[in-house]
Formats: sequence, C-alpha cells, structure tokens
Amino acid sequence: MKITIPDIPIPDFTARDAAAARQLQLTKPAGSLGVLEKLSIRLAAMTGKTELAFPRKAVIVCAGDHGVTAEGVSAYPAEVTPQMVMNMCYGGAAINVLARQAGARFKVVDVGVATDLPPHEHLHNLKVARGTKNMAEGPAMAMPEVLDALNVGMNVASMEIANGLDLVAVGEMGIGNTTAATAIIAALTGKPVAEITGRGTGVDDERFQHKILVIERALEVNQPDPMDPYDVLRCVGGLEIAAMAGVMIGAAAGRVPVVVDGLISGAAALVASRIAPVMRSYFIAGHQSVEIGHQTVLRELGLRPLLDLGLRLGEGSGAVLAFHMVEAAARTLNEMATFEEAAVSNKD
Amino acid sequence: MKITIPDIPIPDFTARDAAAARQLQLTKPAGSLGVLEKLSIRLAAMTGKTELAFPRKAVIVCAGDHGVTAEGVSAYPAEVTPQMVMNMCYGGAAINVLARQAGARFKVVDVGVATDLPPHEHLHNLKVARGTKNMAEGPAMAMPEVLDALNVGMNVASMEIANGLDLVAVGEMGIGNTTAATAIIAALTGKPVAEITGRGTGVDDERFQHKILVIERALEVNQPDPMDPYDVLRCVGGLEIAAMAGVMIGAAAGRVPVVVDGLISGAAALVASRIAPVMRSYFIAGHQSVEIGHQTVLRELGLRPLLDLGLRLGEGSGAVLAFHMVEAAARTLNEMATFEEAAVSNKD
Repeated sequence: MKITIPDIPIPDFTARDAAAARQLQLTKPAGSLGVLEKLSIRLAAMTGKTELAFPRKAVIVCAGDHGVTAEGVSAYPAEVTPQMVMNMCYGGAAINVLARQAGARFKVVDVGVATDLPPHEHLHNLKVARGTKNMAEGPAMAMPEVLDALNVGMNVASMEIANGLDLVAVGEMGIGNTTAATAIIAALTGKPVAEITGRGTGVDDERFQHKILVIERALEVNQPDPMDPYDVLRCVGGLEIAAMAGVMIGAAAGRVPVVVDGLISGAAALVASRIAPVMRSYFIAGHQSVEIGHQTVLRELGLRPLLDLGLRLGEGSGAVLAFHMVEAAARTLNEMATFEEAAVSNKD
Repeated sequence: MKITIPDIPIPDFTARDAAAARQLQLTKPAGSLGVLEKLSIRLAAMTGKTELAFPRKAVIVCAGDHGVTAEGVSAYPAEVTPQMVMNMCYGGAAINVLARQAGARFKVVDVGVATDLPPHEHLHNLKVARGTKNMAEGPAMAMPEVLDALNVGMNVASMEIANGLDLVAVGEMGIGNTTAATAIIAALTGKPVAEITGRGTGVDDERFQHKILVIERALEVNQPDPMDPYDVLRCVGGLEIAAMAGVMIGAAAGRVPVVVDGLISGAAALVASRIAPVMRSYFIAGHQSVEIGHQTVLRELGLRPLLDLGLRLGEGSGAVLAFHMVEAAARTLNEMATFEEAAVSNKD
C-alpha cells in the first residue's frame, strides 16, 4: 500500500501520574470535579505535559459527496453539500458560530465534493474524487482513492500542527454520510444494521426503512473484510470519512488530543483505531449524538461522552462545544490552589 | 412579614415565538441543535429579547455556616467555610478558575459565616448571623434572620443588575449545607430523607447513615410546614440558602436568567419557586449533580440539566460551566445564516 502511517506515541504515564497526584492536592474534595478530573489526567497522558494549555484550537471539517444518495437515503438533496461548504466558508453555519465562541480556527477540506468549489481562505481544495460511487451497487471507492483521502487528512493535520495546534475537533459535511458511516460501523463491529441506523438529517418512516435496506444491500454486495479498515472504507466508506481518520491519526502523531463529534466522526475514529489501536488514547468523545449508532461507536472505543445535548447536526458541532469542557479540565488542574497554598484544612 | 417580594414578569411569549420561528429558518435540519434550540427559545422568553446576548455574566456565591455540623455530618471541619471563602477571594478555588474561563465576574457574599472575615474587593460583608443554630435540636434560624438573609440576596441581585447583568449563576460555600439542603427538599417535597440524602463532600458509610438520622431528627423536632417556604427555611434552612433564593428572585425580577447549580443551589431554587411559582420560567439547570437529591429537585422544577459531568463540588461550578452552553444557544440563534441568506436548499 502506498501509505505510511506515522508513529503515534504511547501515552505519557509520568505526566499522567503527576496530574493525578496534583488533583488530590487541589482545594476541593477528591474526585468532586468528576469527569473533568479524569479528563485532565488523560490530557496529561496525551500531551505529555502537566501544565496543560490549549490556546491554539482548530476545527477541521472534511467534506465529500456520496453516490449512495442516488438511492434516496437523505432528507436533503446532494446539492446541499457544496452549498453548506460555502456557508461554512462565509461563517454562517452552526460550526462557525461555535468555533468562534470556542476561540478555535476553522478549516474545511474539500476531499470529495461532487462539484467544483471556488477558492476561499478557509477552504483546502484537496479533492481526491467527485464523490464516491453508489455503494449499493459496488465499492464506494477504489483503493488508491481511500489511501489518497487518508493522506489528505494526515497532510492537513501536519499543516495545522505546523501552524500551531493544541486541540482539534474533526467534523464533516456530506449529504448521505450517515448512511456510509452506519455501513462502516456495521462492517467493523458486526452489529445488525437495523440496530444502529438512525434518521440522519431527518428522514420519514418510509425512507428510514429504505435506508436500512440500502445499507444492508451495500454490505451484501461488497462484502467488506471486517478485519481490514482500508477495505471497509473502499467498500462502504466516504472520501471525507477517510480524510477524517487521516486527520485524527496525524493529530495524534503530534500528541494533539482529538475531540470526536457524532456518528460520522465516530465512524472515522473507529476506522482510525483499527488502523492504529493506540489512537484510542488520544480520543475525547465530545458528545452523545441522537444517532443510535453513535452509542455503539463510543462503547467500542471505550469513551464516555462529555456532553449529551440531543444534537444530531454533525459538522463537528458537539466536539467544538466540548472544547469548553476540555479547557475547564485543563485550567482547574493548572490554576486551582492547593490545600497547602491556600491554608485550607483537608478532610478530617 | 417584613419582606417585599418584587414583581417577576411572566415570560415574553412574543419573543419566544419569534425565536422558535427563527430556529426553523437557520441552516441546519430543524431540531438538530437539540437542547440548545429549546434553550434559546426559553432564553428569549426570559429576557424578552430575540437578539440574545450575555456579555455581562456573574457568579454569586453565598456563604454561611451550619450549627448542625456539631452533629458530625460533614467530612470536613466547619473552619473550612471561612478558609474556602478567602481562597475564593484570592482566586484559587475551582469556581474562580471556571468563572475566569467563562468571562464571568465573581462575588462572594458572607451572609452567615461563623467567624469574621477581612474585607476584600470580591467579598460582600452582609452577615445576618454567625451561622445557623443546630437544626437537630431546634429551629436553624429565627424568622427575622430568614427574611434578612432573603433580603440580602435580593439586594445583592439588585446591586449586580445595577452594575450590568445578563446572566447569573448562584453558588455557595458552607460546610454542612448538603444536610440543610436535603432537609429543605424533604420538607418541601415530602420525599423520604433516606431516598434523597447523598454523601456531600464525601462522608463514609457510618457517617452517611448518621447524616440521614440527623436530618430525620431535624424534621421531627421542628415540624416545618411544607406549604410555607419561609417556615421551612426557619426550621431547617441555611443563611446562605435563603440568600441564594433571594439572589434568584432578584435576578428574575430583572429578567436575568438564573443558572442553578447542584444540590444546595437546587434547594434554594425550590424555595424560590415556592415563594414565587413564576421563578421556574427563569431557571436553567446547569448540570446534574452526583448528589441523589438533586434529581428530585430538577424533576420538581421541571428542568433538564445541560451537563452531567459527575460533579459534586458545589460553589456554582456546574452552573458556570453551563454558561458556555447558554452562550452557544444564544449565539447559534443570533449568528447562524438562514437558508435564504446562505442560498442553501431546504429539506426535499
């Protein structure tokens, strides 16, 4: 294969233990900051630092189209993919608002939008193909496309790291991509399609049943090898999903914690963890999506979501919202006084 | 009674409906921002505005001591109350870190700390009494103390509103106050004490059983009138809890949304809602605390918590963390492009 997966460092146990020890000295009952304490300890392990700081944050949205939309699996027409990419470029999408609020820079990567997009300062034009093929009829991609899309993601991560990156959220735009993500999750976990399929952007009952049948057909037609994440991408993946997995791998290689978003971001994380199991150590689950298959992904990755806000938007929205919790975990660890410093009595 | 409860405006249904209508025009599947959409609509109703903005945020921590600590109900000695108040003044407590992160100003109100505290720019010295009496032996307060403490809270809210206030979190410091809060919740809801008592800052099994017995004894000895929130405060309340209810009422009177924190803040919110039922319209549940009684409070108030992070710290920490979600709800409503503005196709 024409791909080189970079070395991803194992977590730093010294930093982890130092963070855990410091948590016990801070002026609060031990454990009373709950998930934030555990997260701060994981962040130390990921970054290798005990003085945690995430001033340089980015959200990277990968965009691609899906041939399977020809089957009528989405509530929205495929033209919405480029329209929403441009909306993101102009700053009008939810992800832009939430990125601004979180102090994160925003980039969208065209790795597979079916139409040509005009240049824009926030847009990386790195198109590998004009959308995938219809996976209900054959493989979504050829293997070189899979590898190119993964490389695009890894390269984007490297560029962003070169620009300074402490924390990243990985989101997407691609009409039809809950269908591809669900097929990937089914292929990699063996779960029945009907148990993990959701309504995406909001299909009605009839189209929902049809969506399940289309995913089942795609798996039947292509027979992806569940042990081979590259083959799963080739058969039922998406260009943006492959690129997202690449971004995640590239970020982790630079010790940058990766905040996973919803179903599609979760599917990409699952793929990345099958390519390199150590990836799990770098994932933070931003939120629990309404999409039912997302629960399967988080369980498989051993992640507890930071937020549960009934979101089903994608774009990276839930991941960027969780940046505030990551900052809170870091800042409480760093900035709180110890019992000794504050002359506060500890437990009886 | 020597207390005047201010008029609290009913929610603005015109603003609410305008926000709900705008949500349907924004470039996302309808409902896909989940809880944030519902919150934005409630915020419009609370503030009477559809252009939501919360630049001036405050966390107000009310501090008081509890005579019931003589019964050994807490894992920490009572001296920790003034120590932690001073830690907060110097900026070393979790609430300070989280308030800084959220861009919120911080004030602590000494309404009932047992010892004298030195003046400090962040401290309001408005002491009503040097702690409550031991509620296991008789009433925690005299009625004039209850009313004075409520007035302190309402006055602090008025002062803060005069300084400019768009959003407030109400927290506390007071060793022993989960015991008082639990007694208040039991008195106002009729729930069995054993079902709603938690471990506070972290008592062991033996002291936990003892804590339940102490609360049951306090209710037995004082026989608070469940229909009279003032009497419940008098019998088993806390000076800081009364002041917190006052802050909440004063904020709502100025149409300032109130983010409720954990068990004690929840008990204060319950008291406030019994004093003025319209208060419920101004409450936002910041988070779900580990403290079991908090679930009862939120159910009683009809609130769904924004966060669930396994917190059991108090101070207002979970409420201030939720400020980020309130901002996200407001900013997505305000700043997202509409389908028309962005020329994005809507659902098929």
